[in-house]
Amino acid sequence: MNPRTEDMERPPYKTILEFAGNYKGLAILGEDEVKALCNDIRKLIIDVTLKNGGHLGSSLGAVELCVALLRVFNPERDRIIFDVGHQAYAYKILTDRLTKFNTLRTKGGISGFPRRAESKFDAFDVGHSSTSISAALGFAKARDLRGQGHEVVAVIGDGALLNGLALEALNNVSVCGTKLTIILNDNKMSISPRVGGIAEHLAKLSVSAPYMRLKKFVKDRCRASAEGRGVENWLDRVKTKLKSLLLPTNMFEEMDISYWGPFDGHDSMELEEIFELSKQYPKPLLIHVITKKGKGCSEAEDEPSKFHGVGSGTVIGPAASQAARKKGADWSKSVADKICEMASRDPRIAACTAAMEGGTRLEAFRGLFPDRFFDVGIAEGHMLTYAAGLAAGGMRPVVCIYSTFLQRAADQLVHDICMQKHPVLIAVDRAGLTGEDGETHQGLLDMAWGKSVPGLTIGVPRDRVDLDFMMSGWHDGNFPMMIRYPKGSAPDSVARQPGSVPAPWGKAEMLSDGETVCLVGLGSAVEIALGAAAECEARGIPGPAVMDLRFAAPMDWPSIDGAMAKYSLMVVAEDGYVTGGIGESIAARASTSGVRCRVYPIGVGPKYITHATRAQQLEDQGLTAGGIACFVEELYGGNTAASG
Amino acid sequence: MNPRTEDMERPPYKTILEFAGNYKGLAILGEDEVKALCNDIRKLIIDVTLKNGGHLGSSLGAVELCVALLRVFNPERDRIIFDVGHQAYAYKILTDRLTKFNTLRTKGGISGFPRRAESKFDAFDVGHSSTSISAALGFAKARDLRGQGHEVVAVIGDGALLNGLALEALNNVSVCGTKLTIILNDNKMSISPRVGGIAEHLAKLSVSAPYMRLKKFVKDRCRASAEGRGVENWLDRVKTKLKSLLLPTNMFEEMDISYWGPFDGHDSMELEEIFELSKQYPKPLLIHVITKKGKGCSEAEDEPSKFHGVGSGTVIGPAASQAARKKGADWSKSVADKICEMASRDPRIAACTAAMEGGTRLEAFRGLFPDRFFDVGIAEGHMLTYAAGLAAGGMRPVVCIYSTFLQRAADQLVHDICMQKHPVLIAVDRAGLTGEDGETHQGLLDMAWGKSVPGLTIGVPRDRVDLDFMMSGWHDGNFPMMIRYPKGSAPDSVARQPGSVPAPWGKAEMLSDGETVCLVGLGSAVEIALGAAAECEARGIPGPAVMDLRFAAPMDWPSIDGAMAKYSLMVVAEDGYVTGGIGESIAARASTSGVRCRVYPIGVGPKYITHATRAQQLEDQGLTAGGIACFVEELYGGNTAASG
Repeated sequence: MNPRTEDMERPPYKTILEFAGNYKGLAILGEDEVKALCNDIRKLIIDVTLKNGGHLGSSLGAVELCVALLRVFNPERDRIIFDVGHQAYAYKILTDRLTKFNTLRTKGGISGFPRRAESKFDAFDVGHSSTSISAALGFAKARDLRGQGHEVVAVIGDGALLNGLALEALNNVSVCGTKLTIILNDNKMSISPRVGGIAEHLAKLSVSAPYMRLKKFVKDRCRASAEGRGVENWLDRVKTKLKSLLLPTNMFEEMDISYWGPFDGHDSMELEEIFELSKQYPKPLLIHVITKKGKGCSEAEDEPSKFHGVGSGTVIGPAASQAARKKGADWSKSVADKICEMASRDPRIAACTAAMEGGTRLEAFRGLFPDRFFDVGIAEGHMLTYAAGLAAGGMRPVVCIYSTFLQRAADQLVHDICMQKHPVLIAVDRAGLTGEDGETHQGLLDMAWGKSVPGLTIGVPRDRVDLDFMMSGWHDGNFPMMIRYPKGSAPDSVARQPGSVPAPWGKAEMLSDGETVCLVGLGSAVEIALGAAAECEARGIPGPAVMDLRFAAPMDWPSIDGAMAKYSLMVVAEDGYVTGGIGESIAARASTSGVRCRVYPIGVGPKYITHATRAQQLEDQGLTAGGIACFVEELYGGNTAASG
Repeated sequence: MNPRTEDMERPPYKTILEFAGNYKGLAILGEDEVKALCNDIRKLIIDVTLKNGGHLGSSLGAVELCVALLRVFNPERDRIIFDVGHQAYAYKILTDRLTKFNTLRTKGGISGFPRRAESKFDAFDVGHSSTSISAALGFAKARDLRGQGHEVVAVIGDGALLNGLALEALNNVSVCGTKLTIILNDNKMSISPRVGGIAEHLAKLSVSAPYMRLKKFVKDRCRASAEGRGVENWLDRVKTKLKSLLLPTNMFEEMDISYWGPFDGHDSMELEEIFELSKQYPKPLLIHVITKKGKGCSEAEDEPSKFHGVGSGTVIGPAASQAARKKGADWSKSVADKICEMASRDPRIAACTAAMEGGTRLEAFRGLFPDRFFDVGIAEGHMLTYAAGLAAGGMRPVVCIYSTFLQRAADQLVHDICMQKHPVLIAVDRAGLTGEDGETHQGLLDMAWGKSVPGLTIGVPRDRVDLDFMMSGWHDGNFPMMIRYPKGSAPDSVARQPGSVPAPWGKAEMLSDGETVCLVGLGSAVEIALGAAAECEARGIPGPAVMDLRFAAPMDWPSIDGAMAKYSLMVVAEDGYVTGGIGESIAARASTSGVRCRVYPIGVGPKYITHATRAQQLEDQGLTAGGIACFVEELYGGNTAASG
């Protein structure tokens, strides 16, 4: 600590950021200025993220890391590949998005993740975890084959490193025989606290005395040799010596990846020295950096899981408890509550999550049934096969997983669960349009993919009544099932008479009768369809019927056939891709069965949907009462004209 | 070697197998009898596998292992989970399938893989690799939670161990805190020779002196203590001592999984002793066993990759070269040849495989362009993201992968390739019905899943002309693409006029005009549709038109709309699941656009298709000229009746 620096009047962060201009201006900053810059970046990140929502903890933890990367590497020539990408806010600010940073995650603004379409400095699009080493290996090998000489750097967190994809990549590094630098940004958390044998190994490395000493040697040597020449031979000698004396156990070294570390990830100068040295080192290298999630924001430091991602308009500090929005029963919580209820009656019920305890609201379950709660880390594939094993062994596991991450376990769903008919319930959270995280996090494929998988029942409840009914039905039965539900709050009841009971298992439900037009929906689209029906009536189209399909697989063909026989126009609305979706199956049925009814699927078009609010995304896709009413009005006009 | 045993007249293998009866009879066999039994089992496996086709090398390598497992563990109580399952032939024979073994992989016979529906001794269905540790962990945890006390054993090969799913599971073992035994069946191969840093690590362990000594200690102790009590404390003491002296580096121990080994996997008595000891050991344990792929069959020992899986009617020995069927240009070879041709002109072309160099016929490519050939091991997810990185770095990678294994990389296809528009070509081999490997190996989902993925072009060539055209088109362009083709031989030309050129990019092709009926196919279904058209004419249905769709995504709607306007009946045939398939999209279009044409998708029904020849499976699904003609005849009758 230098008191002079502490007391120095710093310009407001905009000023120093504007002074730095972009990463090119960074090089001339002195140590104190770098510190001040980091503080200012933190302020900007906190301000914007609390306002717009976003990934606070990981971004704050990686500020010095991003600054050091940009002072040492050339982002126009070198390729820096962030894993997941939610830690790259400082990188975005310092490359070319300072002035746009206040648009973070808003419609038309910048993405919360690296996006090649947004900036030439973003080397690889990301959002899902653990892709960076594979991609970096590809970049590095392409560089070698094309005779280029730039650096390739992957920045990966300790949670992401434990995923199978990253482990496959690590295993492939030595065979590829190419130089790449992996920066392990170890904050001892993935999203929830990390779990697993390798995590223990990392913890041991973090306090490993030989490596602490090696670190000092490396630094001293780095200082002594301005150009860093001869470093490699010297390091090899040091390592051989250390090994012969102490034989440190290190999984990275065992995979022929040199290990340097651990280093203090909040000491920019130390990071810079090491990064400079790494450029001279010709072999695959892993630099282990210890950071603190939420660094510089005490609330985020204290509760890293809670502040991993925050919603827009988040308030922290003394006003927080007052401002805390009443957390109603959102879909995740409703599902979690029901799992607790089932588990209290049935000791076979277990719950699984892949590092998403908070997101899937399983905290209460873990508290009540710790023996039956399994957080496997970011390991979706393993989670599904593990659940299949639990089921084969007589348990009844419920897997809570976001729709977009279920894509990482697609084969396990088919090969290990459905083919073998294991009674696993896949609770597919954040299904459909998911808002501000953008294209990497949309849950638009689960129904289209799931409906093709033989033996998979897919329930899509419109409200908590059907959610309860469907989960109970799975529990009473003995088959694999997927229940999908969107982000946001779950209505207690939609279009139910007081005292009514849910429709029978597997059956669609006609919510209102009509004349010519039948609106079909499932899940959250049912409420939209009901609104559209009212809107249609207001526009003079006589009372469209509304049907809740309820099950996406197997389809209730008798009810659908009945509706197609009665109505001449059917619009099927779904919160998923139209191509391959449920509406397509129904429209196909109409052609094959030869009814006069014309069926129009409506849903998400064949595009990757960028960040905006979920409401904006629904609007853009025409998945609103007004949007469907307009669509029906046009069809109805055409239809009556044609038949007239 | 005991000369007395060698000279002893053994009864023919049927006799000793019948004597052993099933696994219960095994216990009373002496050492020499066990050896003789193993020889006899080998003879049976070789005879049946050469006749029926199957996985020869891995089965022969695991004979002593299976015998030892069944002499030590109780397969009715304990759970033995084979990884991949192609090494379990001896297990099948010795549990309850001796008399059915000659039906291996034939229609109605026993499967080449463990199947719960086939036998109570098969704990978990399998076929894809690397699921066993996840499943075993689930079984073990379920056992603990249900208060049971049986053993859970996973048997996994060294190739499968290097897949991300298995690595995720290994990482999760210590957290689960449950006893399971992992038997690492290390034949130093996966399917092709294994690759990667961890493989090197295993090789080091195989010759690790401290462990060789530990093995002897364990065995001596085992002999000394009949009941094995006190073994754990003693082992811990030994290990601590060894560690303090020698600090052996071992990734399993680092993950809190005790490591025992290596042991000779062809020494039944040694294996038995160790397995007995393992039952007394209360912690997660990995037993490293060294085996020889193809053991006991010199041809299979010499060429393990070639004899990993053999076709039916394989001849070995002196007659082999004469009997070797003329290997024509099958689809895999045609694709591989074209990749070589592109690579010879363009240094950006690279080829990737996941331990399937032989299956995808990339041997020649590897020979010609070793720098641009990448076998990543059984790591499909990594392979696709690596290819995305290569493409982002300026290369043009072609990924050769079986359809069924592409399911293991579904998210990487979406998130890392298509969303980012990287120009990767996914050559999807063994697409459609695949024959004798059965339900785990069918390639029925790639079109249904792929068509929903925005930005993915899907080409389905009917012959080598279109294959060449489509691969060149991908090469000339700059976009992600999937080309799918079935198992078997690729026709040079189907329905082409001499000197004609392929239809334009993205367009369907009308191969013959007709009157009322239009048969639409793509890929191998085109030739079937042409046969069906001829068959229809023979049955008095005037000349059905035949259209080759050629591209499954994006669809050529103008051509399809044109055909639907002209014909009143359209049958769309595809070698994939009907639900979510291409025919469904076309039928949906018919309803939505309001044409009179009725569209009938025909393809594979919503079931897991068990083993049989591909021809039998096509027949069963009605995907034959006769099957389609019957279908059309029925529809045509109904149609003319209805319109009459």
